[in-house]
Amino acid sequence: MRLNEYFMRISDVDPAAVIEKKTQDFQFANPDKVIVRLDLEDDPLPCPDPCTQAMKSALESISHSLMKLPPRQGYPFLTEAISDFYLKRGVKIADSEIFINDGAKCDITALTDLFSDEDVVLITQPFNPIYYSSNLFSSRPIRFVTAKENEVPMPDGLKADVIYLSNPGNPSGLVYSAEQLSKWVEYALINEALIIFDASYEAFVAEGGVRSIYEIEGAAECAVEICSLSKSAGFANTRLGYTVIPNRVVFGSEKLNRLWSRRQRIRFNGVSNIIQRGACAVFTPEGQSLVRERVKLYTDNVRILKKPLISAGLARDLPVNAPYLWFSCPKNESSWSFFGTVLEKAAMTLIPGSIFGAAGEGKMKLSGYTSRENALLAAERIEKFLKEI
Amino acid sequence: MRLNEYFMRISDVDPAAVIEKKTQDFQFANPDKVIVRLDLEDDPLPCPDPCTQAMKSALESISHSLMKLPPRQGYPFLTEAISDFYLKRGVKIADSEIFINDGAKCDITALTDLFSDEDVVLITQPFNPIYYSSNLFSSRPIRFVTAKENEVPMPDGLKADVIYLSNPGNPSGLVYSAEQLSKWVEYALINEALIIFDASYEAFVAEGGVRSIYEIEGAAECAVEICSLSKSAGFANTRLGYTVIPNRVVFGSEKLNRLWSRRQRIRFNGVSNIIQRGACAVFTPEGQSLVRERVKLYTDNVRILKKPLISAGLARDLPVNAPYLWFSCPKNESSWSFFGTVLEKAAMTLIPGSIFGAAGEGKMKLSGYTSRENALLAAERIEKFLKEI
Repeated sequence: MRLNEYFMRISDVDPAAVIEKKTQDFQFANPDKVIVRLDLEDDPLPCPDPCTQAMKSALESISHSLMKLPPRQGYPFLTEAISDFYLKRGVKIADSEIFINDGAKCDITALTDLFSDEDVVLITQPFNPIYYSSNLFSSRPIRFVTAKENEVPMPDGLKADVIYLSNPGNPSGLVYSAEQLSKWVEYALINEALIIFDASYEAFVAEGGVRSIYEIEGAAECAVEICSLSKSAGFANTRLGYTVIPNRVVFGSEKLNRLWSRRQRIRFNGVSNIIQRGACAVFTPEGQSLVRERVKLYTDNVRILKKPLISAGLARDLPVNAPYLWFSCPKNESSWSFFGTVLEKAAMTLIPGSIFGAAGEGKMKLSGYTSRENALLAAERIEKFLKEI
Repeated sequence: MRLNEYFMRISDVDPAAVIEKKTQDFQFANPDKVIVRLDLEDDPLPCPDPCTQAMKSALESISHSLMKLPPRQGYPFLTEAISDFYLKRGVKIADSEIFINDGAKCDITALTDLFSDEDVVLITQPFNPIYYSSNLFSSRPIRFVTAKENEVPMPDGLKADVIYLSNPGNPSGLVYSAEQLSKWVEYALINEALIIFDASYEAFVAEGGVRSIYEIEGAAECAVEICSLSKSAGFANTRLGYTVIPNRVVFGSEKLNRLWSRRQRIRFNGVSNIIQRGACAVFTPEGQSLVRERVKLYTDNVRILKKPLISAGLARDLPVNAPYLWFSCPKNESSWSFFGTVLEKAAMTLIPGSIFGAAGEGKMKLSGYTSRENALLAAERIEKFLKEI
């Protein structure tokens, strides 16, 4: 057997594993130090109680009718709840346009199954590494647009067929204004391109900001939107996300929605009733109120953590629209070097920005997914550390 | 955007949906008739009670540590249980060689991500349609080997790089002898080919038959094995399977196990703790005893159903190693035509054999996944129907 030669370009190095190893090594050499971790990107709170209760009820009611394969696109009770959730925000999405999945990552990467190898992929820097890696499975050409410092990336005239955007940006944390996002939609429509809109962190967009690309006119003709319950409702372990493919997204004479159904029929068998019942509880008024509490906890953590970084001139005082912060290393130190410095001198872990592409070199990301206590302790350490260097 | 031109060859017709539609239409036209369905391939019994209990316990104990992404390859408690399960049958599989997935179908089709587009794929007829369809996502050439009547397909000298085998055969229900399977392993080793061994129904292989390809010498150097809990432990809705990739499967200088880990890192985020806890209960002595009860129920159903077919000369009296039966249509009727005849005249649904490739034309499959009561009723109807035509 010959192996996929394109795939062979992908490195085996898992940055999260490298961080883990360095952290463990440091702890081993310094058994007395209490390491504060700001590199962990999983919400540390359990699923909201109504979700756990709903999953328990589903387990109670397991019966013949629940032993069938789940409907491949999702149970109507969940796709309808999500459709209503959009409608409450003024966005019309039919339940037939919503596909339940076992996590945003699977669908973001699986969408490549539908692209021609000749499509030009556009990735905006800095980027979530899976946009890049999942396109290294084939010969598809990849182009980059790099954002200006503290600005969202904008189209720069480069011709592309598939465009990856994230909102709030991962790792930048920046949110597109309606006007900025309209420019991307306009660009996609002119170029007959597809926008893959990664809205995994949409719940963190502050009141009044753009949460869904479908708030923008024309987007329902050129964009797929991917959302996750991992980031806002503690589903990282439980696994559930959803993908929106509007019926009006058409290439040639083919509806992308129908092609995706066809793809799913061959390569996917749905998500269990138990998990979908749990997810449904996220979209009730009670569930949404609990989501807002969590969003407030983590964004407030970020507000606490960014203060000493703003004082030191390493971050700008921008609105917080994500459970993480993107900032500069002091003294032009490289990302991995600064990771080591902070670990060594402040017993704290951060995420090296270079993981997010070349444009991330010299930058760092920190995660606000921690307790308030830890966030306060970390902010103190950051302040002290920055004064000493 | 240009679409994947190879994928465009795949039809949107879902045979299961066509069967459903025809069945509903018949019921609508004949409201008084009680249709007996032998086309449904999901185990109608709920998950065994120990599995449901384990899932409930997992939900009770949801805590901070369970909110992280699941380990991508599976929780050690489950991979170790499966490794032990193999060892009890005399097969040594390290837990690092086992990958937990959300159902056999996802991995059977996802493995194509690692193949070169130049690899020649060999599919043995009649076949599970996903082997074929999942290879229509690229330009990869596909060849077929057709089995002789009531025999397992054997290598016929055709050169191939990737070989799909199922054991027990789906839809044939036939099990390879060790000697027959050794010929495929030998063939794969000589041709440096990979065998994808679909063992989704392995629990149904009668005592003494080959359940795992790793019972065959040399298989650990050329074969990947895929198993499912959907067929033997009622996990069709719950979603859990596993893939075995031995460390000794190497192409060029690359371990397939390592490449698969790399693939999963990019395109998969694991299976929830809740579901894996439930699955773990399948591998206890109690769980296995419940699996054997179910296997007996469904294979006995098949034994009941095959009697009138044997009498009519449409099936041979072979050992039952699957929860389904493969048999011939009478009077050379085509599969879909016979489907209609049986529905019309006996108010019974079967699966047209032509769904399983050209070699399945003129054949039918029936599923034993039904109650004993239904199986007895269906056997009566089959007998009566065959006498009347």
